[in-house]
Amino acid sequence: MNAPVIPPKGVPQTVTTGPVAGSAKVYASPAGRPDIRVPFREIVLSDPKEAAVRVYDPSGPYTEAQARIDLSAGLAPVRAPWIEARGYGAVAPRAVKPEDNGFVPEDRLVAPCPAARTIRKAAPGQMTTQYEFARAGIVTEEMIYVAHRENLCREAMLDRAQAALADGEGFGASVPAFITPDFVRDEVARGRAIIPANINHPELEPMAIGRNFLVKINANIGNSAVTSSAAEEVEKLVWAIRWGADTVMDLSTGRNIHNIRGWILRNSPVPIGTVPIYQALEKVGGDPLKLDWEVFKDTLIEQAEQGVDYFTIHAGVRLAHVPLTARRVTGIVSRGGSIMARWCLAGHRESFLYERFEEICDICRAYDVSFSLGDGLRPGSIADANDAAQFAELETLGELTKVAWDKGCQVMIEGPGHVPMHKIKVNMEKQLRECGEAPFYTLGPLTTDIAPGYDHITSGIGAAMIGWFGTAMLCYVTPKEHLGLPNRDDVKTGVITYKIAAHAADLAKGHPAAQVRDDALSRARFDFRWDDQFNLSLDPDTARAYHDETLPKDAHKVAHFCSMCGPKFCSMKITQDLRADVLAMEAAGVVIGEAAPMSAADREAGMAAKSAEFLAEGGKLYVDAAE
Amino acid sequence: MNAPVIPPKGVPQTVTTGPVAGSAKVYASPAGRPDIRVPFREIVLSDPKEAAVRVYDPSGPYTEAQARIDLSAGLAPVRAPWIEARGYGAVAPRAVKPEDNGFVPEDRLVAPCPAARTIRKAAPGQMTTQYEFARAGIVTEEMIYVAHRENLCREAMLDRAQAALADGEGFGASVPAFITPDFVRDEVARGRAIIPANINHPELEPMAIGRNFLVKINANIGNSAVTSSAAEEVEKLVWAIRWGADTVMDLSTGRNIHNIRGWILRNSPVPIGTVPIYQALEKVGGDPLKLDWEVFKDTLIEQAEQGVDYFTIHAGVRLAHVPLTARRVTGIVSRGGSIMARWCLAGHRESFLYERFEEICDICRAYDVSFSLGDGLRPGSIADANDAAQFAELETLGELTKVAWDKGCQVMIEGPGHVPMHKIKVNMEKQLRECGEAPFYTLGPLTTDIAPGYDHITSGIGAAMIGWFGTAMLCYVTPKEHLGLPNRDDVKTGVITYKIAAHAADLAKGHPAAQVRDDALSRARFDFRWDDQFNLSLDPDTARAYHDETLPKDAHKVAHFCSMCGPKFCSMKITQDLRADVLAMEAAGVVIGEAAPMSAADREAGMAAKSAEFLAEGGKLYVDAAE
Repeated sequence: MNAPVIPPKGVPQTVTTGPVAGSAKVYASPAGRPDIRVPFREIVLSDPKEAAVRVYDPSGPYTEAQARIDLSAGLAPVRAPWIEARGYGAVAPRAVKPEDNGFVPEDRLVAPCPAARTIRKAAPGQMTTQYEFARAGIVTEEMIYVAHRENLCREAMLDRAQAALADGEGFGASVPAFITPDFVRDEVARGRAIIPANINHPELEPMAIGRNFLVKINANIGNSAVTSSAAEEVEKLVWAIRWGADTVMDLSTGRNIHNIRGWILRNSPVPIGTVPIYQALEKVGGDPLKLDWEVFKDTLIEQAEQGVDYFTIHAGVRLAHVPLTARRVTGIVSRGGSIMARWCLAGHRESFLYERFEEICDICRAYDVSFSLGDGLRPGSIADANDAAQFAELETLGELTKVAWDKGCQVMIEGPGHVPMHKIKVNMEKQLRECGEAPFYTLGPLTTDIAPGYDHITSGIGAAMIGWFGTAMLCYVTPKEHLGLPNRDDVKTGVITYKIAAHAADLAKGHPAAQVRDDALSRARFDFRWDDQFNLSLDPDTARAYHDETLPKDAHKVAHFCSMCGPKFCSMKITQDLRADVLAMEAAGVVIGEAAPMSAADREAGMAAKSAEFLAEGGKLYVDAAE
Repeated sequence: MNAPVIPPKGVPQTVTTGPVAGSAKVYASPAGRPDIRVPFREIVLSDPKEAAVRVYDPSGPYTEAQARIDLSAGLAPVRAPWIEARGYGAVAPRAVKPEDNGFVPEDRLVAPCPAARTIRKAAPGQMTTQYEFARAGIVTEEMIYVAHRENLCREAMLDRAQAALADGEGFGASVPAFITPDFVRDEVARGRAIIPANINHPELEPMAIGRNFLVKINANIGNSAVTSSAAEEVEKLVWAIRWGADTVMDLSTGRNIHNIRGWILRNSPVPIGTVPIYQALEKVGGDPLKLDWEVFKDTLIEQAEQGVDYFTIHAGVRLAHVPLTARRVTGIVSRGGSIMARWCLAGHRESFLYERFEEICDICRAYDVSFSLGDGLRPGSIADANDAAQFAELETLGELTKVAWDKGCQVMIEGPGHVPMHKIKVNMEKQLRECGEAPFYTLGPLTTDIAPGYDHITSGIGAAMIGWFGTAMLCYVTPKEHLGLPNRDDVKTGVITYKIAAHAADLAKGHPAAQVRDDALSRARFDFRWDDQFNLSLDPDTARAYHDETLPKDAHKVAHFCSMCGPKFCSMKITQDLRADVLAMEAAGVVIGEAAPMSAADREAGMAAKSAEFLAEGGKLYVDAAE
């Protein structure tokens, strides 16, 4: 099985590395824990009066200036010492079977990632999950890491943090002015946040998903029909996190999925999620009626040993729910949901995922694989939004959430889908109520069905709103949704669109650290510091390229105008003069506007008396580009 | 002055014509008025059981199948007989002056549009504006036209219309199940809607802007630094309305603006708005301190005679407001606002726009030019949102709204700008309160400042929300906002993004006619009618192109899968089978799920007994592409 693939010419054997334009990767440690190095992206500004802006950075070592990446060795296992100290026993890994890679012929086989890792599993009763530690009052290194990562610059601005929170609207969220490790522990213990972190994924840079932390986004990737190299698949991950994806779901099917998943996990600094039913279905030749507990259980163990951090489990699709979907406009649009509905109905039997849920919990607990309880019955159209099938499943997910907690597992809940704006809030409220405030993880929602080709936008609107209302993670949608497979540009567009939605949500919630970046960019805009504007934006390359289409010269990077309004008519330029005048007049004791409206005579007098000193340059509207 | 330009080679002398893919332009008349022909775009579907979908269509005769366009003759003056019947006197047009075209040298002059039109002006006391007619209880042809245009297919679905309204959330809007001409009259009489329709713009296809009508969008265009042909400028208009712009603002500055405006108006089926202060400033060499009432008044008359339908007037920027902006992060970002602030401050005098507002009303009334009261002090950053300057101006706009109504004029109010999500709703509420429910017309708002290059999206989020809350028209933002001049693709992207926002708002308000299109597209999606999906979308060309990137063959247009999930794993395909099974079982009297969970034995029995008939094809998941 180990015959390495000789990749065809022209297929990249490396992945994208180097800093995002205009920024540098920095690491910082919480006080007293030099062993915990938390990554940030630092944007240094051209104005010495402006502090550098630190932004949250899920991109991993790939964006270091001197990044040295060896895909075969995998990323440095930063969590290894913490995990080791917890004393889990090493286990002999489950033997790889031909069906794990979709019975791929030798000549098409992607070689397994050679990076050597000890496979671990908790003994029965041995504390394993972040939830179990949190409940026991133990603050893990992962929690300390997350606290430092989420605070960003909050230490330096606690007073402003309070003001921001007071100014925002959190709909019952409890975002603190400053995040302590114990706050993280408490949120995890309450089940209001999860830290997806399989004990077999030591390369992970820990992150939290919860309503009282920054809103996160997920990007989906999947293997190509014909895979030419492992690097090609890892690059999809690296590209998505470069632009800001906080977690990545590997939705691969077909050939080589086991080995490709290995390459992805060994080289991923972010949590990796999967939908195990996809691979299980492959193993039984694509026939859902051949699915059973044994093949599914075997798949869970296979993926848990590899280090998958969260599983989408569609255990809420019960036999009794199936008829509720029969008269929908778009039926069941979740792949996993339709597969399980088919299985249930064909045999007129209850879902084995539902019946075996406690056993699934036992497996997940032993590796700390978090649950993402799948919304297999989410609406696929505006017409089906918030219907009986969707809400019946959500109630079942609430029931399963409590089972998972009792079993010591971390849980988040998946949500819709397609929902018009006026029906979004009730989704959030019902989820919080039914699922005991477990984190909500939604796909969009799309707010209209009439714009295929632009569904990153139709869904970005709903994502921003539901993120504001309390959703903890937003699953991105690309422009190709409903039409085809996204390419590299589509993935970037989807990620940037969802970073916008997540940030808009953080701003509206009054997140203390959120507006710092908006303000820095706005000041750069008013000061005509073009490079700073580009560098502070979510996509510096595109911002710069758009500007340079019409004003390419370096001189224009300091010009007090852009091609939108040109050198005259630039309101920013005009108001810079204006500001100076107002301050001068106020300094001169002039009460502006008090006497207005003035008579013509008064105006003359007023002009002569009050504005002589700045009238001279007052008319200066034409700005020399050289200026 | 009439020396025609010899355009350089390669410059288009024609504009884009022909139907939008997959649809046909149709005209329909309200009962008893065959002289009133209202345009729609009709999308005929491939499934004979599916009714054709009629959508609102601002694109004018350009999208007729056999469109014969003669730019020199202008569009057919459809309103001419109605206007003539009202008996306005013909006036000798104001003589064109060199400064009207920015002192352009002869060899650079764009020839004036030769289309001959009688210039009309109302006599003092003669009823002119749609507002005056409405107040007098008179239903104009424009009102009848608008009623028929807004109803779309509502006649055929009055019961569903009621249900849709009951299901929506309108925040106090009064959208009726069916729109009568008298309802339109009443909305105009209350000042809650305007019908921008200069009596010198007979080519106009009347439309309404108001909270109880479909949400509208505006696109901005402007002349190029070097204009090569009139067609080149008219094409910007034609391209914007082709994709759905309901009105177009001509923000041209510099040379040839008078003549180019003439070409645009004679060839525009949509209302044209301008910002007269831009041209007035040109006439005084770009020095705001040289601006005065005489040059501004002359410009208003010049543009009113040409047929401009609405003027942005920044009369709310008062001297006393200027100091309120001095400590803002981004000062004054409105061009007109900054010009007037400069004028006021330099002379320490009240704005002549404010002091002469009644005289401006008299001019607008005589031609029925609607007001778009400009928000010269709108926030230019998240930091400045909802501040004292912005709201002080809004209160002044409320005061001016009542003056304009007293003078018999139609009025709408411009709004922000840059506003985080949690501060959007109060803008709408304050505007309705201060301005007596006059239509709100906002620019976005942008919900974050950190994504230059994607501000169509940051603002599309805010636009959808404020449209839902009650904004009547949304001014588009392109991806180039803050960076440079939009090109053809940027304009299309901006228009489509705003059509999404406007439609999402209509859906959320429960607009009776809105969801018809979503449902038709969703059914097409579930039935794998790919061509119907493309044709029903806002941008059929892009939807088709994205799909064909991975599945180009015609056979794929009927294939029961797409490249997202491939032939297996297609949830839609699975649930089509599922639906048939459920209905069959229910017909057979099976109570699905009642006995579940079943014992293994029961399951066996159940399978044998209940599902024998469809188990045969039950496992069929692999779909042959040829199928």
